[in-house]
Amino acid sequence: MEPENKHNWKTKLHEIIYEADTPSGKLFDVILLITIIASIILVMLESIASFDAKYHNFLNISEWLITILFTVEYILRIITVKKPLKYITSFYGIIDLLSTIPKYLSLIFVGTHALVALRALRLLRVFRILKLARYSGASNKLIVALKASRIKISVFLFAVVIISIILGTIMYLVEGEENGFTNIPKSVYWCIVTLTTVGYGDITPHTALGQFIATIVMILGYGIIAVPTGIVTAEMTKTRDEKPQINTQCCSNCLAQKHQDDAEFCHKCGCKLHYDK
Amino acid sequence: MEPENKHNWKTKLHEIIYEADTPSGKLFDVILLITIIASIILVMLESIASFDAKYHNFLNISEWLITILFTVEYILRIITVKKPLKYITSFYGIIDLLSTIPKYLSLIFVGTHALVALRALRLLRVFRILKLARYSGASNKLIVALKASRIKISVFLFAVVIISIILGTIMYLVEGEENGFTNIPKSVYWCIVTLTTVGYGDITPHTALGQFIATIVMILGYGIIAVPTGIVTAEMTKTRDEKPQINTQCCSNCLAQKHQDDAEFCHKCGCKLHYDK
Amino acid sequence: MEPENKHNWKTKLHEIIYEADTPSGKLFDVILLITIIASIILVMLESIASFDAKYHNFLNISEWLITILFTVEYILRIITVKKPLKYITSFYGIIDLLSTIPKYLSLIFVGTHALVALRALRLLRVFRILKLARYSGASNKLIVALKASRIKISVFLFAVVIISIILGTIMYLVEGEENGFTNIPKSVYWCIVTLTTVGYGDITPHTALGQFIATIVMILGYGIIAVPTGIVTAEMTKTRDEKPQINTQCCSNCLAQKHQDDAEFCHKCGCKLHYDK
Amino acid sequence: MEPENKHNWKTKLHEIIYEADTPSGKLFDVILLITIIASIILVMLESIASFDAKYHNFLNISEWLITILFTVEYILRIITVKKPLKYITSFYGIIDLLSTIPKYLSLIFVGTHALVALRALRLLRVFRILKLARYSGASNKLIVALKASRIKISVFLFAVVIISIILGTIMYLVEGEENGFTNIPKSVYWCIVTLTTVGYGDITPHTALGQFIATIVMILGYGIIAVPTGIVTAEMTKTRDEKPQINTQCCSNCLAQKHQDDAEFCHKCGCKLHYDK
Repeated sequence: MEPENKHNWKTKLHEIIYEADTPSGKLFDVILLITIIASIILVMLESIASFDAKYHNFLNISEWLITILFTVEYILRIITVKKPLKYITSFYGIIDLLSTIPKYLSLIFVGTHALVALRALRLLRVFRILKLARYSGASNKLIVALKASRIKISVFLFAVVIISIILGTIMYLVEGEENGFTNIPKSVYWCIVTLTTVGYGDITPHTALGQFIATIVMILGYGIIAVPTGIVTAEMTKTRDEKPQINTQCCSNCLAQKHQDDAEFCHKCGCKLHYDK
Repeated sequence: MEPENKHNWKTKLHEIIYEADTPSGKLFDVILLITIIASIILVMLESIASFDAKYHNFLNISEWLITILFTVEYILRIITVKKPLKYITSFYGIIDLLSTIPKYLSLIFVGTHALVALRALRLLRVFRILKLARYSGASNKLIVALKASRIKISVFLFAVVIISIILGTIMYLVEGEENGFTNIPKSVYWCIVTLTTVGYGDITPHTALGQFIATIVMILGYGIIAVPTGIVTAEMTKTRDEKPQINTQCCSNCLAQKHQDDAEFCHKCGCKLHYDK
Repeated sequence: MEPENKHNWKTKLHEIIYEADTPSGKLFDVILLITIIASIILVMLESIASFDAKYHNFLNISEWLITILFTVEYILRIITVKKPLKYITSFYGIIDLLSTIPKYLSLIFVGTHALVALRALRLLRVFRILKLARYSGASNKLIVALKASRIKISVFLFAVVIISIILGTIMYLVEGEENGFTNIPKSVYWCIVTLTTVGYGDITPHTALGQFIATIVMILGYGIIAVPTGIVTAEMTKTRDEKPQINTQCCSNCLAQKHQDDAEFCHKCGCKLHYDK
Repeated sequence: MEPENKHNWKTKLHEIIYEADTPSGKLFDVILLITIIASIILVMLESIASFDAKYHNFLNISEWLITILFTVEYILRIITVKKPLKYITSFYGIIDLLSTIPKYLSLIFVGTHALVALRALRLLRVFRILKLARYSGASNKLIVALKASRIKISVFLFAVVIISIILGTIMYLVEGEENGFTNIPKSVYWCIVTLTTVGYGDITPHTALGQFIATIVMILGYGIIAVPTGIVTAEMTKTRDEKPQINTQCCSNCLAQKHQDDAEFCHKCGCKLHYDK
């Protein structure tokens, strides 16, 4: 094992694991995707008591298989990356660890086996893998529009939370503990359930005044849902409106561009634009 | 039975059954529409126990009548079409079979009678029949806008499902089986119920942390409903804005374009526009 | 009582009752508005058992007072209008009758007293009265946009109903009577409750397959709410875009208008447009 | 204490309390913000019975501390403002009083302690404090768009309320008291719960006709949610489109306008634009 050879071996692996322009890189991504989905399905089936009772051994063995695969992947990622610490402390590094370690922990600590379900976090990697896929264009536009409206939506959600705290507190005073509004956090929870039009019905107003305030909360929620919608729609149509400059004239004297459509003289140097008339 | 005569007879029937430009073709469609709606109403009434008890015989006879009508239609469709196998394996061919066969099956197998309700699938044919109707324009625009935003909406729904799986799994860990989150698929089901603001209330969080996560899910759902709305709206306004440049006149003197539709003289040089040639 | 005098008297009353350009006409509308709102509040209070028990006499007398007022109005409307039959059979004529007659009927038939609540229909007249008010502009724009998108929304709602019937029927087969889906109409009711994201929770899926289909219905409903929103928004922004023609040039030769902003010659007669250069 | 000195002292305090351009003014705002949030958290914790039982003394002392701080702030605000009465009767003046006084009242009147929760109203001041922050731009745009669509949204909500009263009354007649629709206000409450797609499920239709009307209400609510969304979206895209014409240059030779922002020569006649004067 010559050092340079080893370096080559590392670089190749890095290319396979972290990149996706080579066929083997793509293959790795596809296999990873399938393994993640399989592991999620496994963890789901395991959580169903009747299924777990029947196929406990099969599930356990598969779990270990996937855990070992994920462990190998985790170690390879650390080995092949230039700055291992940066990977380990990165968002995906933490997720990779969180989704691998619970199975080992369950050997040591009793009762931590349910944490295996944390593996679902791995699904987030799907977004990264799909970045390479054909959906990329559409999702990019979505993300651009969402990012552009980030501040406006934050302001809106912030206002929703404050309104919920105030109205929730008022409902706590109006309805009281005997009607299920046992404390203010629960009242605020009720208020958000109502304002977002989810409406579980686990807590509902019973007094006439409470029902009246509830209708105001509902109509408020029904009305202000228009706000995030308006924000995102305005952003999405804006992205569209910013069409590329169509006029391709270029002044032959000073090479200035971006002339108006009906311009006859260059707006930079005053030379006549040559339409070849 | 002369072959050519038979062919004529087949072509005519084909025209009546598959097309709608002749009066008899239109009449066939209207009768089919009425029969489908009548069969749906019958199957609905039959499912109501008290109604079925009273009018069992009437319902049974009507069922058979409609089944025979559908059988005749199915056979005629197979006979008159050029490639019978293509029809049988087509979407509408399968629906036609599925909506006809259960009544016969109920003679052989006990307990399959409820499958008669599959006839409701026939309602899908209504969309095809109405293609011929005056609503066509409006629904076409809808379909164009929806098709154009197909990929973006898929990306969005895909993200919704992944978020639901992750958050559902976390809620399973937080709330546990004693609070109704008996397994991960059920938790994911709860998460989708909450994220889409449906909010049945059959499963609700009981712990403080669970309720806190639930409010995040709700506000998330309340906020991201803006995304499909933004997508479709942007698409619908786009369809409108893209009016093709209709007037293609070009002045023969100064080559100016973009004339108004009712222009008779060039608005740049005053020359008569030659369109009367 | 001279005929002409009587005619005058009738014309005046007609002006007061049916029109709103005179001070007395406006006064009549305001009084009618107050009476309608008072009658609605009365009927609401009366429906509350505890309130009715306490103030039964007061409520009964007020009811009769309002009924007599409405009767007088109804008779006056018939007398003063040119074609009484047209008024009686008109939408508002029927509402006026329906909201007046139940009190009289309750004298004859026992148990029909609750129908007094039909008086709530009178609230519809509020829309007509407010047509004269300052809100008129805003509501007109709303109505124009809604009317323009009428057909598209109908197509959409029609599709929603058909999808609900099909999915409701499938859920009836999947869940069955033991899980609350007792018959197909009830399943369709459940489907609409879910698709519109209302989610009462009075009927919920209990089987795994049923819950899976339910999540599809929910995500479908969550996604397609974007459609009516897109339709109305597209319509509302369209109304806005149709800005009045700004270019006010008028050819001094042929008086043609609607010239383009950069036109130098009339597009109708070819004369030079006089910019006073 | 010389009067002028006192005046200076007052002016300084006024600057600190009411304004935010000085470092001490900003510091005051930040401290106020923290105190408000701390007071809200305290009142929430206190409302949780189990928490209150454990830490009653700590909570009580903290409450008094915050009450004294708020009292001092209230008195300082009155002293330093020019027109104390105007502040006292202003919106924020009343909120400041309402959020301070309940603790004192609880000393005199037994059972009024819960009113301490009114302190949540103080959260509204957060909006005012944040006016100074960087979110200001985004929230201003939101507020402008919402204000512009104020009348249209009022008309819409007004129509929603009237429709709810009418449909609620009809449901009261259809379902009756035995199905939970005990009186008309409750039926109207049900109707708003359904129309806004909240759907608690505390009151649900039980008769077939009632369920049929309910589906109409739901589809209505599902459809008309498009209206406020359309209004706000139209308003938000409008705000964007109305970019005022910024460049006001006018060529001194040919009087052509609409020059680009960086134009140095007229695009119509090629003359130098005189803006260096």
